[in-house]
Amino acid sequence: MRKGALIIISAPSGAGKTTICRKLLARREDLHYSVSCTTRSPRPGERNGKAYFFLTREEFKRKIIRNEFLEWAMVHDEYYGTPRHFVDEIVKKGENVIMAIDVQGAMSVRRKYPASILVFVLPPSLDALKSRLAARRDPQDSVAKRLANSRGELAAAKDYDYVVVNEDLEKAVGQISSILTAETLRTSRLDPSYLLPALA
Amino acid sequence: MRKGALIIISAPSGAGKTTICRKLLARREDLHYSVSCTTRSPRPGERNGKAYFFLTREEFKRKIIRNEFLEWAMVHDEYYGTPRHFVDEIVKKGENVIMAIDVQGAMSVRRKYPASILVFVLPPSLDALKSRLAARRDPQDSVAKRLANSRGELAAAKDYDYVVVNEDLEKAVGQISSILTAETLRTSRLDPSYLLPALA
Repeated sequence: MRKGALIIISAPSGAGKTTICRKLLARREDLHYSVSCTTRSPRPGERNGKAYFFLTREEFKRKIIRNEFLEWAMVHDEYYGTPRHFVDEIVKKGENVIMAIDVQGAMSVRRKYPASILVFVLPPSLDALKSRLAARRDPQDSVAKRLANSRGELAAAKDYDYVVVNEDLEKAVGQISSILTAETLRTSRLDPSYLLPALA
Repeated sequence: MRKGALIIISAPSGAGKTTICRKLLARREDLHYSVSCTTRSPRPGERNGKAYFFLTREEFKRKIIRNEFLEWAMVHDEYYGTPRHFVDEIVKKGENVIMAIDVQGAMSVRRKYPASILVFVLPPSLDALKSRLAARRDPQDSVAKRLANSRGELAAAKDYDYVVVNEDLEKAVGQISSILTAETLRTSRLDPSYLLPALA
């Protein structure tokens, strides 16, 4: 049986990666969202175990020590981490996992999963990015601070496998879905025995 | 501007590659068929310049000498070749070209276009392949001979970038269309200046 693929979406804050992931998950039954752990406070409407597992700093540090994260990092003064167990289970079943993580996290995961697919989502322009950040109400994190981080992240796009520009949301979602479909058809992902039925 | 991609479809005779190419071309305006030259006789309904440019052996040999082919080969005792000029023009315009050629031809083209995308189409089984070959009326080429060639070609699938099983035609066409979409989004295909507007 074929192992599932791990697709990682990174983008500057405000480029739309959360919406893209939600739309992809609605479209593809073979795709599952990797729920991350974080120590940041929930935004209005965010439920524990859905957008994130919300942990205290003490809980988070305990999991780090027990090596329960595939990757973890501190971003905007809060901890974020990907629980290893969840991803392992799905990939083993031959289904796919999507993660929305930052550049540093993406590079860490790739080291553990060299076959992971890295997609960088670009905003159509830096002006578009500013508008989206300003529209988002987030008292704990200033627009200026996120924007400064975003500039640094944009430079990392060249290290990703694919670059998708989120100018039209539906188009961007379709493009990432095509990337996932194509990657599952890669010869390098096929179990060699897959070719045998055709020769029998 | 981005250069177009060259997508190469190979398959054992009778696996359905001609139908797949026709459907892909109907679906995508950014895709053009690379019409090959051949010395084989036209089948009923095949028009010159549409399925192939039908040439005499003398005409074909003259073009070889003038280096007018991107690749050429003898298959089933007939010459087949891809005119270089046609492909160069389309790729330069930023659009994509599709070719349906055999394994030997595909490997030759890849040497000249390392960025070409190689897709191998598998029949769902060797039985399915036999039925399709038997259903095709082709007096100049026996089913047994084509079948023998097919077995050899199947072994080459592992050298291709992607493997698509033509069990359901529409699904196979959708998968190859996804491969083309994904490949055009590869970071390695982007002009580096493409990332600049986002940073401006």
